[in-house]
Amino acid sequence: MLETSLHKRRGLNIAILAGLSFVFLNEVPVSQGVWPMPQKISQSSQRYPLSPEEFTFQYAKDSAAQPGCSVLDAAFRRYFTLIFPGYSAPSASTIRVVPFTLMVKVHAGGCEEFPDADSVERYSLGVYAGQGVLTAETVWGALRGLESFSQLVYQDEYDAYYVNKTEIVDFPRFPFRGILLDTSRHFLPVEVILKTLDAMAYSKFNVFHWHIVDDPSFPYQSLSFPDLSEKGAFHTATHVYTQADVQRVIAHARMWGIRVLPEFDTPGHTQSWGKGQPDLLTPCYRGPVPSGTFGPVNPTVNSTYQFITRLFKEINAVFPDSYIHLGGDEVNFFCWKSNPQVQAFMTKMGFGSDYTKLESFYMENIMNITAALNKTSVVWQDVFDYHERIPRNTVLHIWKGTTAQYRQELSRMTEAGYRVLLAAPWYLNHISYGQDWKNAYTVQPLNFTGTEEQKKLVIGGEVCMWGEYVDATNLTPRLWPRASAAAERLWSDEEQTSSVSEACPRLAEFRCRLLRRGIQAEPLYVGYCKHEFQAL
Amino acid sequence: MLETSLHKRRGLNIAILAGLSFVFLNEVPVSQGVWPMPQKISQSSQRYPLSPEEFTFQYAKDSAAQPGCSVLDAAFRRYFTLIFPGYSAPSASTIRVVPFTLMVKVHAGGCEEFPDADSVERYSLGVYAGQGVLTAETVWGALRGLESFSQLVYQDEYDAYYVNKTEIVDFPRFPFRGILLDTSRHFLPVEVILKTLDAMAYSKFNVFHWHIVDDPSFPYQSLSFPDLSEKGAFHTATHVYTQADVQRVIAHARMWGIRVLPEFDTPGHTQSWGKGQPDLLTPCYRGPVPSGTFGPVNPTVNSTYQFITRLFKEINAVFPDSYIHLGGDEVNFFCWKSNPQVQAFMTKMGFGSDYTKLESFYMENIMNITAALNKTSVVWQDVFDYHERIPRNTVLHIWKGTTAQYRQELSRMTEAGYRVLLAAPWYLNHISYGQDWKNAYTVQPLNFTGTEEQKKLVIGGEVCMWGEYVDATNLTPRLWPRASAAAERLWSDEEQTSSVSEACPRLAEFRCRLLRRGIQAEPLYVGYCKHEFQAL
Repeated sequence: MLETSLHKRRGLNIAILAGLSFVFLNEVPVSQGVWPMPQKISQSSQRYPLSPEEFTFQYAKDSAAQPGCSVLDAAFRRYFTLIFPGYSAPSASTIRVVPFTLMVKVHAGGCEEFPDADSVERYSLGVYAGQGVLTAETVWGALRGLESFSQLVYQDEYDAYYVNKTEIVDFPRFPFRGILLDTSRHFLPVEVILKTLDAMAYSKFNVFHWHIVDDPSFPYQSLSFPDLSEKGAFHTATHVYTQADVQRVIAHARMWGIRVLPEFDTPGHTQSWGKGQPDLLTPCYRGPVPSGTFGPVNPTVNSTYQFITRLFKEINAVFPDSYIHLGGDEVNFFCWKSNPQVQAFMTKMGFGSDYTKLESFYMENIMNITAALNKTSVVWQDVFDYHERIPRNTVLHIWKGTTAQYRQELSRMTEAGYRVLLAAPWYLNHISYGQDWKNAYTVQPLNFTGTEEQKKLVIGGEVCMWGEYVDATNLTPRLWPRASAAAERLWSDEEQTSSVSEACPRLAEFRCRLLRRGIQAEPLYVGYCKHEFQAL
Repeated sequence: MLETSLHKRRGLNIAILAGLSFVFLNEVPVSQGVWPMPQKISQSSQRYPLSPEEFTFQYAKDSAAQPGCSVLDAAFRRYFTLIFPGYSAPSASTIRVVPFTLMVKVHAGGCEEFPDADSVERYSLGVYAGQGVLTAETVWGALRGLESFSQLVYQDEYDAYYVNKTEIVDFPRFPFRGILLDTSRHFLPVEVILKTLDAMAYSKFNVFHWHIVDDPSFPYQSLSFPDLSEKGAFHTATHVYTQADVQRVIAHARMWGIRVLPEFDTPGHTQSWGKGQPDLLTPCYRGPVPSGTFGPVNPTVNSTYQFITRLFKEINAVFPDSYIHLGGDEVNFFCWKSNPQVQAFMTKMGFGSDYTKLESFYMENIMNITAALNKTSVVWQDVFDYHERIPRNTVLHIWKGTTAQYRQELSRMTEAGYRVLLAAPWYLNHISYGQDWKNAYTVQPLNFTGTEEQKKLVIGGEVCMWGEYVDATNLTPRLWPRASAAAERLWSDEEQTSSVSEACPRLAEFRCRLLRRGIQAEPLYVGYCKHEFQAL
């Protein structure tokens, strides 16, 4: 798959290299390669020095993307800094100036589009003397290849930059590789989200699942319903995401080839919604009188669906992704059961005393609303567990249970023909003492009873970082590099990456690279990085 | 204990307050008081506005410390910033200018000294209209009082500053309240140590136990034995503490009234020592030949004691504290047993096959060396568990076991007449999901079988932050505010602070205060701080 008609300036480079004795030293550190592991990679011990002064990115002549391509133009600027950490300006004393061009070619344009569920991320990369060649079907694939290239570059003890002769053919095992951040239990400043997007791209994650609202707070500043955040946010001035903030997140994510999947979880997990939308939640009753507390969204009144329709119309306009996450988890029936209007509705609809039918009724209506907006609905597994009539193109999201339980759920869901996302083994907000990244690493997402066709319905997985005990102070060290362990499981070939002991030094080196890039990633075990995190 | 002859400018303040309607609002946040809880505090709902422009610290005329007192002069500058967070310069539009003087009086001088084991930290503080009065026996007590005063000040929703009428009489429950940092398993940059010292002072910790070297690395740059760090540090240029670094740490700690207790742990935990001091460690044998690996310090040769004598002489000169921590934990006898020279020494000394006698022999010699330097030795509990002849003024440090086990150890050690430090329940490097600060809070250090005389031998406790999984990236959120829970146990009256549920909102507010001061302290649970941590 590699370009063969390269303009290799090998003669030039060899002439330059010949004068440099340190090229032949073998004691210097070499790159441990790329994290997550590419599908195919061959590396030679032959290495080439790189000079920031003479390093250039270039669009191939026959590339569909050319200068002016917003995604790649910006990526070239970013990756120059990532490839040459610590480099600021040409030094007058630089003696080794070695030209190197990384030639980039994409088959399709789409430079102004957003990444989406069908984006093709495969790429191939060849690194030779004086030149690298990166080929991809799309700009999103080119971004993945740029990340890999940046990880091939390393520095020796004198801080000189090198890259080894390398050939890579790479593509993701799963198309959906997500991270969930919860901005309701604690507010996360936009800068923290942007920094997390950067780190996600370094591990080739491609979906930011934004669990933006929940019981404790409603920080999303809605255009249609400004009272939701005005009254439901922790603080209306400092703890909200304005429309500009949201667009900033989406634009930043796009530049890394990361989708933004918003979740507006209903009918449960909506206490904060009730503050700004008075008739939305179900009034709970104590005997014959309202108790003053509220339960889930009231599924028995038209005003609820009018509200959701209008809100989702806005969300559809604000978030470009073709997916929307509808939640649907952990609905407590206690309040519905207490409410006489709800009871009457149950009777009228013939639901008897089966409140899962009421929940089902609600979710069906909501899914119809999103279907009318041409959005693909994602719902937590509860909706499948309790209901029958789920539209076939819904994506089901597994979050519960032991390994045996989520494997059974994978079987059942895929047997029923649904596409599935696996989050259950990657609740990385949960912590324990020691090297718990190994748990995230040794997950086998396709190790369940089912046909090959069923396995194909597993579209990916997700690391969840729920916010009960997490905010801007501890998010990053709790997430990284533990999430990177999951990232390799979701991107790489499982057989090639089955050994924890082989992963360990690679992940340790990758973690040092994260530090070098300003990501506050915690250590795996005793040891050091040449460039420690500069905390202050 | 409060000064009674105050120059109260109450008339003036009331006149100013009368024009300000917001003074009478009750919805505004009020301070949750002081963490750790003072021994005696009474607060009135009467509050006084404070203006940074007209706030002054002043030495009382009859104070033993006067302008030029290095510790207090510097503390006044620091605490001005801590009392008025967010304040930078006088605003032209400031309409409320309310003079307030905090009068400080200490009975003893000692402005240029170091805090030590016998430093008296008690203080009393009265806050009235226009004036506060802080009285202490020593400058170290005055520092504790300044911290308390700074925590009494709060801001309303318009960011105006207030303090309520308050009287405090306060003193620590235990004289030794320490935090251990481990700079061998991971190197901690000096700036991170200094920042930790700041945070320690906010919780009234007063001992920094510097576990400076251990098996993995020897970052202490010794004057007498430069090879120890040259060969034993992770990196000789970037991962060492120079003499200047050490002095910076000691000087910074002193300004907060914090002692620096260095630990040079022997005879085990010394692998890194062997690299720069070739004949120090015991060569292990496989059968009749050396295996190439090394065990604990070799206790059978004179050169060992000559080396330790010279090293400790240096340490005595570098670290001013009267205590030195000698370690003595987890000595593995495997290597000693394998070595023919050690075996011969055992026979010669009549130790039979009891290697604890050999360890005892070594520790006795080491303790004699420190005694000759007039240092008080601190040793881990192992030395007591295995040995009999420990000098009576040694301090024993409990680090092992369940609650029942460390209580039994407290009984045994104090019955034998030794002073004791308790660390076992405060190994805060260990983490678990959820609100594990409660475990640190509910420790009862004196709940063991023993006389009142025995209880008095418990001189304090220590939070340990071992470095297997901790470096600059995650130290601060792992330590704070969890260590603050231990701090209250060690400073405050246990009966007054026995309720976790009462502690919770107080600790949550204190944690917000830590954020405001730039300490990356993690959240206790769902919620927010008005001023979140500015991570980036």
